[in-house]
Amino acid sequence: MREARRLPRGVAVVGAGMSRFGVFRDLTGRELFARAYQAMGASIDKGWEPGEIDAIYVGNYSSELFEAQGHTAPIAADAVGLVPRPATRIENACASGGSAIRQGVMAIASGMAEVVLVGGVERMSGLNTVQVTDALAAAGDTLYEMAAGFTFPGVFAAMATAYMHRYGMRPEHLMNVAIKNHANGALNPKAQFTMTIQEIMTRRIAAAEQNGQPLPLWKNEMDFLHDDTSNPVIAWPLRLFDCTPISDGGACILLTAEERAADFTDKPIYIIGSGQASDTALAEHTDLAGLRAGQLAAQAAYAMAEVKASEIRLAEVHDCFTIAEIVASEDIGFFEPGTGYRMVEDGVTARDGARPINTSGGLKTKGHPVGATGVAQVVEIWEQMRGEAGARQVKGDIPLALTHNLGGTGATCVVHIFERR
Amino acid sequence: MREARRLPRGVAVVGAGMSRFGVFRDLTGRELFARAYQAMGASIDKGWEPGEIDAIYVGNYSSELFEAQGHTAPIAADAVGLVPRPATRIENACASGGSAIRQGVMAIASGMAEVVLVGGVERMSGLNTVQVTDALAAAGDTLYEMAAGFTFPGVFAAMATAYMHRYGMRPEHLMNVAIKNHANGALNPKAQFTMTIQEIMTRRIAAAEQNGQPLPLWKNEMDFLHDDTSNPVIAWPLRLFDCTPISDGGACILLTAEERAADFTDKPIYIIGSGQASDTALAEHTDLAGLRAGQLAAQAAYAMAEVKASEIRLAEVHDCFTIAEIVASEDIGFFEPGTGYRMVEDGVTARDGARPINTSGGLKTKGHPVGATGVAQVVEIWEQMRGEAGARQVKGDIPLALTHNLGGTGATCVVHIFERR
Repeated sequence: MREARRLPRGVAVVGAGMSRFGVFRDLTGRELFARAYQAMGASIDKGWEPGEIDAIYVGNYSSELFEAQGHTAPIAADAVGLVPRPATRIENACASGGSAIRQGVMAIASGMAEVVLVGGVERMSGLNTVQVTDALAAAGDTLYEMAAGFTFPGVFAAMATAYMHRYGMRPEHLMNVAIKNHANGALNPKAQFTMTIQEIMTRRIAAAEQNGQPLPLWKNEMDFLHDDTSNPVIAWPLRLFDCTPISDGGACILLTAEERAADFTDKPIYIIGSGQASDTALAEHTDLAGLRAGQLAAQAAYAMAEVKASEIRLAEVHDCFTIAEIVASEDIGFFEPGTGYRMVEDGVTARDGARPINTSGGLKTKGHPVGATGVAQVVEIWEQMRGEAGARQVKGDIPLALTHNLGGTGATCVVHIFERR
Repeated sequence: MREARRLPRGVAVVGAGMSRFGVFRDLTGRELFARAYQAMGASIDKGWEPGEIDAIYVGNYSSELFEAQGHTAPIAADAVGLVPRPATRIENACASGGSAIRQGVMAIASGMAEVVLVGGVERMSGLNTVQVTDALAAAGDTLYEMAAGFTFPGVFAAMATAYMHRYGMRPEHLMNVAIKNHANGALNPKAQFTMTIQEIMTRRIAAAEQNGQPLPLWKNEMDFLHDDTSNPVIAWPLRLFDCTPISDGGACILLTAEERAADFTDKPIYIIGSGQASDTALAEHTDLAGLRAGQLAAQAAYAMAEVKASEIRLAEVHDCFTIAEIVASEDIGFFEPGTGYRMVEDGVTARDGARPINTSGGLKTKGHPVGATGVAQVVEIWEQMRGEAGARQVKGDIPLALTHNLGGTGATCVVHIFERR
């Protein structure tokens, strides 16, 4: 692959916003997209004209399966008044948003567009849990994974057991990820879940007391997370709190050529690296304790950006399950293979740690409307790098940050690197 | 929109091939993609190495609905051994293939890739006709078209009646399109339908004779096409032979930077114009006798290429229904609005006419595996421009040619212009 090079034309993010993530049965996908678009518009410091947009990319996994609506991009463009601009849907399962950003970067770098809207959207709550599980399983390999009953909780449970076997990780280490991400998400007004594990536990105890039920014996969060009633096993070792919820939501960012950025803001963030890789479905992998697509996408992004993993201050990574965050933190080179789980335990990836991961709450707590996720990751990077993340704000300068967006059973990964000058 | 400009870096097509189109219930989408990939590889004059490919784009409308398989691009890439290269699915309904080509052009023009595989695939025959009609209807606007029963035959029938009312066209003029495209398709070994209307008619008469049934009274093709038994009304004025079939198939082309083309062939064709536009769904259109997305996409492509419609020798246009070809021939500026149907009648768009349209047989006869269609159009252009179209070959030089790929109920159109130097 010959993509290890700087972009021929610099690309800047000059606006970013998202709808709240959650369950919104009274909103369609196009309405969620419109809410994200409005939030993005409101984020543009110097004001703007929608007429400046040259092209639209929409990351979406499967509006067909979730809403019986294909041809998603012009529907979204129409919903926000951007017809007749070219609008294109990008689908790479849960990495659709990341791949859409990559197409936006190319559109600008190619000179074929100056201002590009990149959005992501998914409206999943119209289906029940079994239907959603089936719809998502189609992002794996239908013939060799789904047909064998290998749906996503099982896929990531297999990764977790492989990782545990090789590196000595215990289920408690996965729980650390959930505790950390709930702590972050509780500070994110756009997040689906707004409570820390501690708060959830305290509420349940209070409810039991009020209803005259026997009081749970939880002394701390770990007790709560080990309890098969409060945190049932989904696919061992993964329990309910190891899994992302079913979510509705949208996210939008506005990209422009570096030389145009000052028209929109004095505080742009620059995309200096973009890497994407494909892989076989997980069923064909020989190593389940890491994902090659993640490693290669990160390497390609670092090579293009000409920076090292050690220079990145924080990252939003694809924690569709708690194990996925640990594996991702190693795949992007933050930590050596087999050490990521200890970094969570030691607080290194906490908001006030040396290498914060998923300050937004991650997919786990913020929610995971799959096509929106890759774009929403950039919304967090935008707020953090500009010092606008409120109670979640990481201390000190953030000159470099990274997003890692995974699709399917590891068959796509997209990594972007952002710079604040 | 600021895309009216020459590409910053020239892009050449250096290989093109397709699977046969038809009904192949024993083949999966990935297998059809692999067949197209093999045919493309065989078309490369100087040989090549798959390892040279930097990126893959796959046009696909809805493998989720047709095959319960999402995440289509890495599945396709894996099927032909191209993992771990970045692979991305592009969805714009029936214009998915055209939009995929456009992304391939941008990938090269941006300098982020040197050699790009663009494929398209759809495997539709796993569903029955009603299911396929529903799946395709999701490419319109589910809320405002599909919910009102406005499926595709009805959509294009509405366009046909509007056109007839305004311009005086009669159903016979639509039949002329079918007769012409069957004549072309009968000469295309990759086409789904291999007989002219005359041959189909003659066979049916012979079969009736053999079975001792009353002989049909058809004197010519028009009699056959007017007969409600041999050519039943689907959505008036559209009859069976006005509609594309349900098809399985794949197509692939190989793109590279202009300066690299000679590594692959001494007879490349160059992409000098790319235009794409979006629109509202048809239900919101005030004018049904033309499609604005088609007009704008063509204008953008001509502006980038710096050529006029009158300079284009031949075109492959999106004849999902016979009326669509007539409207497209006007939208791309070949003919004045309201005159296209007479050009078919006068033989202007025939293979030996002044402005041949759909020498491949078009979607009507070649078949319409929807995600593959936009790429398969380029396969025909490739063969025609290089003088390799066999019995279908248009006489004389073809310095400039065009593809027109429509999606949904007119909400996307992509036009590309090709040059042979």
